[in-house]
Order: sequence, then C-alpha cells, then structure tokens
Amino acid sequence: MVNGILLMTLAAAMALPAAVDLAVGNPDWRVFAAASGLTFFTGAMLALTNWVKSRNFSIRQAFVMTTSTWCLLPAFAALPMAFSDLNLSYTDAFFEAMSGISTTGSTVIVGLDFAPPGILIWRSLLQWLGGIGIIVMAVSVLPMLQVGGMQLFRMEFAERVEKALPRAAQIGAWITIIYLLLTLICAVLYWTAGMTGFDAINHAMTTVATGGFSTYDSSVGLFGSASIEWISTVFMILGSLPFLLYLQVLRGSPNALFNDSQVRWFFGFLGSATIIMIVYLVMERDWTITDAIRFTSFNVTSVMTGTGYATQDFSAWGAFAAPMFFVLMFIGGCAGSTTCGIKVFRFQVLYASARVQMKRLLSPNGVFIAYYNRKPIPDSVETSVMNFFFLFVAIYALLACGLGLMGLDFITATSGAATAIANVGPGLGEVIGPAGNFSSLPDGAKWLLSFGMLLGRLELFTVLILLAPGFWRG
Amino acid sequence: MVNGILLMTLAAAMALPAAVDLAVGNPDWRVFAAASGLTFFTGAMLALTNWVKSRNFSIRQAFVMTTSTWCLLPAFAALPMAFSDLNLSYTDAFFEAMSGISTTGSTVIVGLDFAPPGILIWRSLLQWLGGIGIIVMAVSVLPMLQVGGMQLFRMEFAERVEKALPRAAQIGAWITIIYLLLTLICAVLYWTAGMTGFDAINHAMTTVATGGFSTYDSSVGLFGSASIEWISTVFMILGSLPFLLYLQVLRGSPNALFNDSQVRWFFGFLGSATIIMIVYLVMERDWTITDAIRFTSFNVTSVMTGTGYATQDFSAWGAFAAPMFFVLMFIGGCAGSTTCGIKVFRFQVLYASARVQMKRLLSPNGVFIAYYNRKPIPDSVETSVMNFFFLFVAIYALLACGLGLMGLDFITATSGAATAIANVGPGLGEVIGPAGNFSSLPDGAKWLLSFGMLLGRLELFTVLILLAPGFWRG
Repeated sequence: MVNGILLMTLAAAMALPAAVDLAVGNPDWRVFAAASGLTFFTGAMLALTNWVKSRNFSIRQAFVMTTSTWCLLPAFAALPMAFSDLNLSYTDAFFEAMSGISTTGSTVIVGLDFAPPGILIWRSLLQWLGGIGIIVMAVSVLPMLQVGGMQLFRMEFAERVEKALPRAAQIGAWITIIYLLLTLICAVLYWTAGMTGFDAINHAMTTVATGGFSTYDSSVGLFGSASIEWISTVFMILGSLPFLLYLQVLRGSPNALFNDSQVRWFFGFLGSATIIMIVYLVMERDWTITDAIRFTSFNVTSVMTGTGYATQDFSAWGAFAAPMFFVLMFIGGCAGSTTCGIKVFRFQVLYASARVQMKRLLSPNGVFIAYYNRKPIPDSVETSVMNFFFLFVAIYALLACGLGLMGLDFITATSGAATAIANVGPGLGEVIGPAGNFSSLPDGAKWLLSFGMLLGRLELFTVLILLAPGFWRG
Repeated sequence: MVNGILLMTLAAAMALPAAVDLAVGNPDWRVFAAASGLTFFTGAMLALTNWVKSRNFSIRQAFVMTTSTWCLLPAFAALPMAFSDLNLSYTDAFFEAMSGISTTGSTVIVGLDFAPPGILIWRSLLQWLGGIGIIVMAVSVLPMLQVGGMQLFRMEFAERVEKALPRAAQIGAWITIIYLLLTLICAVLYWTAGMTGFDAINHAMTTVATGGFSTYDSSVGLFGSASIEWISTVFMILGSLPFLLYLQVLRGSPNALFNDSQVRWFFGFLGSATIIMIVYLVMERDWTITDAIRFTSFNVTSVMTGTGYATQDFSAWGAFAAPMFFVLMFIGGCAGSTTCGIKVFRFQVLYASARVQMKRLLSPNGVFIAYYNRKPIPDSVETSVMNFFFLFVAIYALLACGLGLMGLDFITATSGAATAIANVGPGLGEVIGPAGNFSSLPDGAKWLLSFGMLLGRLELFTVLILLAPGFWRG
C-alpha cells in the first residue's frame, strides 16, 4: 500500500523532466512520460490490490483513494500534452487526458495526422492503461465497495475463481497478461491488414481498451479497409466481455463465455441493434446490403461498446440513426470489461425485476423471485442497480442542462452529456459528432464533461459519496 | 358495475346521432355529443368505483377494463371531430381526442381561432372529463392495483380519510364537487380578467385539468394579459396538488396541504426551476426582471405540470431553455391530481432510496430506512417506484427511436416522445414546439404518440401488463 503511494509520487515527479525535455524539443521526453505513466499506474494498481488484502483501510479511505487516484492521474498525464507544441491550454490537455484514462475517446486535438508521434502514443497509452486499470478495479475494488450492484460479481468471483487462485493480486496479473496478449494479437492483425507498425500499435491499444483514440482526425475511416474494420469490430467486442471469463476459459472451461447470461444478452443487444440498423439503411436509405453490413457492424459496435471510433458520420445516417445511436451510447458492455455505460448486467437485473413486478401485480399474494445467471438476485443488489439507474439518468439530465447553460445547442448538450457519462467518445450533431471535435466548446463545458467522464468511469457512487453531506463527518 | 357498462354502451350509441347531426350541419349535435360523453363517463366512473367495493371482479379483469375504457373513450370522442368541417382524418381526430382525454394538450388542428365553437368546447370538455377521471382513478383504482408505487396512497387514503368517509363513491363525489368548484372559480376569474365568457369556460376547464387545449393557435399568449397568466399559473398549480388533501382541508385540517411532503417537494421543484430560469434569462439573455418573472412563472408551471399552454416560444429562449424544459416535462405534479409525468412522490422515493444506499455503502452492516412523509417506505413500494422509473425511461427511449424511424428529426423525435408519455402537450423545436403543431407528422407517428399518451396516463403498468406473455393464459 505504502509502496503504491510512493511509486505514484515518483511517477508524478518523473513527469516533470519529461515535460521539460519536451519543452526544449528533446525527443527523449517520450521515454520519461511513458515510464512515468507506467510507474504511476503500477503504483496505483499495487495500492488498489493491497486494499483487497489488508483490511486496515476503512471503506471511507478506499473511496477517497479511488476517486483521488482517478483525478490525479489525468492531472499529471495532461502535462506532456500541455507542454507539447500542439498549443493546448491546460483545460484542453486535462480534458484529453481524462478522456484517455477514462477510455472515453473524445478529443480536442485538431490535426492528429500531423501531431508529434510522442503525443499520439501517449494518448493511446493512457487509454490502454485506463482500460486495464478499470478491469482490475471492477474485479477487486468495486465489488468490495458494493458500488451499483457490483457486489453481484464479488460472489461470482469468490465462487468461481477464488478457490483455484487464492490471491487477488495473482488474478490481476493473469488478467493483465490476457489484456497484453489481446493487444499484441490485435496489433499484429492490424499490421498484416495494411497499417504501419506505429498505427497498428496505437490502434490496438485503443481498440482493446474500447477507448477510441485514433492517430487520424478521420479515425479508422481513413484506412478505407474492410478487413481493418472487421478486425477492429472483433477486438472491440473482445474488450467488452468480462475478462474473468477469459481466465476461466484458459483454465479449462471453454464454455464459460457462452454459458454466461450477460455475454448472451450483450450479443443480443448488439445483434438486434445491428440488424435493425441494416434493415433501416437498406430499406429507407437505399444502401447496398454489403455497405450496410460493413458500416453498421463497425459503427454500432463502436458506439455501444463505448469505443468511439467512426468510419462515417453516422449521425447523418437519416432521422432514425440519431435517436438510435443515442440510446446505444447508454448500454455499454459487460461488467468486468473495459467498457462503460450502464452495462448489460444492470439491464438484466432491471428487466428481471420488472417482470417479477408484473407477475406480482396479477397475483399480489404470490411469491416471485428475480434471477440473474440462474441464481436469485439478492434484494440489496436489486436496489443498488435501481439506484444506480436512477442516479445515472438524473446526473445525465443535470449534465445536459449544465451544458445548455454554457451555450451548447440542444443536440450537442444532450449527446455531449451522454457521451461523457457513458465514456463513448463522439457525440451527435455537427459540432461534436463523429465528423466534429470537442475543441470549440467553452472551457466550462470541457471541465463539466471531464467530471461526467470521471463519474461514469467510477460507477457514480464512488465519486458521489464524497459529495454526500455526512461523508467527511465522523 | 353492470350499470356502468350499460351506460357506456348507451353513450356510445348516443355519439352516433350526434355525429349524424353534425354531418348535416345541425348545431344540435353538440348537445348529443356532450351528453353522450358525460353518460359514457359517468358509466365508466360508476363501473370503476364499483370495482373497489365488489370483489367479484378479478384483478385481471380490472386491468382489461381500465385500459379498454381509456381506448374506447377517445375512439368514440374522436367521431364528432372526424365528421366536423375541419377536414380531419380519423387518425387526426383520434390523436386529438386521446390528447384531450389524457389531458396532454398536443393538437393537430391548425386555425383554432376559426374552428366551430362546438368543436372547441368538445375538446375542452374532453380534457376536463379526463382530468376528473384520472383523479378518481388515482384515488380508487390505481392504489388497489398497486401500480407503480401508488399503493403508498392506499394506506394514506385508508388511514386519513376512510374512517370519516367510509364509501369510495362518496369520496369520488366530494372530489368531483371540489373539481367543479375550482373550475367555476377559475372561469369567473378569467372572465373578470377580460376573457369572453366562452373563452373563460374553455380555458378554465383545460387549466384545472392541466390539459392545455386553448381556443386559439397562439394559446394563452394571444391575450397578452399578465393577470390572465397569473390566474392560469395559480390554477395550474391547484390542479397539480393531491385532491384528497383538499378534502382534508375542507374537513377541518387546514394545514393538511402544507404538512404534506409531496406538496412541499412540488413547490421546491417548481420554485427552483423558475428561479434558475429567471436568473438565466436576466443574466444571459438580457431580459428585464419583470418580463422574466412573468413569462418564466407561467411557462415553467405550464410545462412542469404537463398543462402545455404557452405564451411564448420557450424553446427559442436560448441554449439552456431546451434541455431545461425537456427535463421539466418528465417531473409532473403530485399523485392524485390531474397531472402526469413521473410525479413528485416517485422522485421523493427514489431520492430517499439513493440516500439510504449511500449510507449503506459507508456502513455495510448498518440498518437504514427510507422515509416518505415521515413514514418508512415499504420495500414493495420502493421496488414498484424503481420499476416504474426504469420502464418510463425505457419506453421513452423506444418511443423516441420509433419516431425517428418515421422520419422525425432529432429534437422532434426526442421531445415528441417526452411530451406524449408525460402528457405535456407541446414538444420542442420548430415542428412541434410551442409555436408549432402536430398536424404535419406522419400518421404512424400520430398513432405512436397516442399510444405513448395512453401509457403515460395509465401509469404504464396498467397497459403493459396486457402485453405481458402470461396475461391472457390461465
């Protein structure tokens, strides 16, 4: 624990020479920055995993540490960008760093195609680290803190894996190896499909992290290659599945993935959204079937998993596309993956609960139980999930109003709030849509969006609890 | 019960001569239509109140009857409009009738200023009847059916009133008298403030019902009179408070209104929204303070209570106004009033539950209880309310996507879905905003919106349960 904090301090210190190097034009700054980030991150992870083991830390301290880590990291990670020759203000740099670490993928940089490679790899690295960071947190810290129904996975976790692999740190290590392997395979595939080595590595890091930063303003669309898009689709999906299940598959339960109801629901959502969209584009907009399949699969996957790549300006795909993509933003992937949003398991719990409610209306004296993955859902989980859903919607509404107050038009304010809290990336409309950019927004809006990303990434409660009146007392 | 059904059949039959009279230009049709409507309604009310007493009806039948009544009524009420010289298609007429009976207030009629007075009074009457209908239902039927947490008021009802007034029918009669009195007072005040007698009666009926139909295309804005607007604001608020509390006030508990936490929250929401809006308009849009107070109080009250009058095109009040009015649409008034939307007591329950959740996160072993009106909230109510909230949001999202599929632009689709399910009236934007009209929408969109109004008005569950797979079996 103490080691973790020390490492983080060290890393913060290392960011300084890196920034100085950059200021005088020394290309070595990149090494510093990367090293510093990695150190900081390792420190944070060490601290986090230690919490699970040592019970000396109070729950209160755990909340404070988690939130402060996810505020400090982007604050420091922003420095290389602020000092670079991109002429970013600190607000812009912080927004970009928060968007990176939270795997959102919204960008304020115009002219990525000509940006220094150091900055590009730094952005991708932030997303990659943010991705593995959130998986480790979702597996170890969040279930312990019982945030938004995540305790559902504490039981699963304990039951399925802990017997075989007793130590949380060991599980964290295995998951990191899997994550690294997926990234490598993805990079190699991108490379064989025609990307340069540099682009392949960058995109592999932001694909598996479902982050969505690209090295080009026109994102993955620039390559105009169907095979690159299919590779990307597959790895965005792989990044959206529960990483603990990969561990089970590797340990000899090849069916673990397909037997998991969350995974099946995820494919259900993704499949039906894709099919509806294809039918719409072919029937109403006269697309060819091949085009519709190719562009829909990629962009629907990108938005639903919260990656945020784009190959086309999907917000201009006709009247149906805007509300459809708007709704998709909120869904997200599975718990224990790199994705954000409300997440599939919460919809399962909400649906199961609504079904039971209907039955109860018809037979007020009957006893009905809601199930998740063939097990009864404990009342506390049901209430947590419902509270999460309410707060998600309420905070979304406040964010959208706040953005309106700062002068953003209706579609920019409403989709901007959604893309931030669900950590997607692009919004809808002309300003912040897939063809646009967040650079023109006022500073206040950028800070508000950054706060939205933080809230969304830490599953709301982790941050909100610090703002509760009673928290700092006693 | 049987009487009720007979009366309703009779009324349906009476609609025919009325329609024929209209077709041949005989002005007597109005008498028929009004009589027919009233009879039908009385029949329905009789049937509904009888359910509470006689337990012969199964819950299943109660759901079927409630929903079918609210489908049949507009279907017949549409006839006079379809046969009138306004050249409305049956789709338009049904939309208008459903918008009336559900007290929504969206209109497809262009040129209200020159519409036959019979049609105008018929529209107002529909809203007025719909208003009292929903209050009686909210007091008697919905709590019994345990829809969306309404059982909270069964207990209150039983506890507070039933001892003194044992019969549900008697309570219904008293509430009807109060409703009638409020309408009369409102009409007289409108008249003294300068409206013609005809306008005063029409507007009084749609104000107290928080319906929002006007006799002019430019709604209440046409009068350009501050005193008329303030009268309207006061009576929209009176229509949004729980009518059972008026009964208590009359029976000697003058503080019943102010001691009710729902009423206080309602004024809290309304007051803060109005103040924020005034500050915004004065600071950012350079309005004078008097203008800001006058127009904000009226339009914020109109949207939040779901009335839907407008004195200005508030969706053009700057960037902040659109998301703000959008959020206000969902709030609604108090349970047991004529308003719709999610309703204030549900936000109270959701908030109380989220607070308790936060406390539980900090002390996982502590026991915390959520309160409503100084009484613990039963678990079943908490779950019902949360299920209601989830379904409200989910159905809203489906409606918005459906409207997009029919070719509506983003702001029209998203605000149209909101205004229908929350029974408000106007949407946002140029097409269906306060300065616009629903007439240009495609027929499919009108049917979808009508369905949305029905769902919203009957608190979702009452309708949805009929669509549940198991309902028609066994």
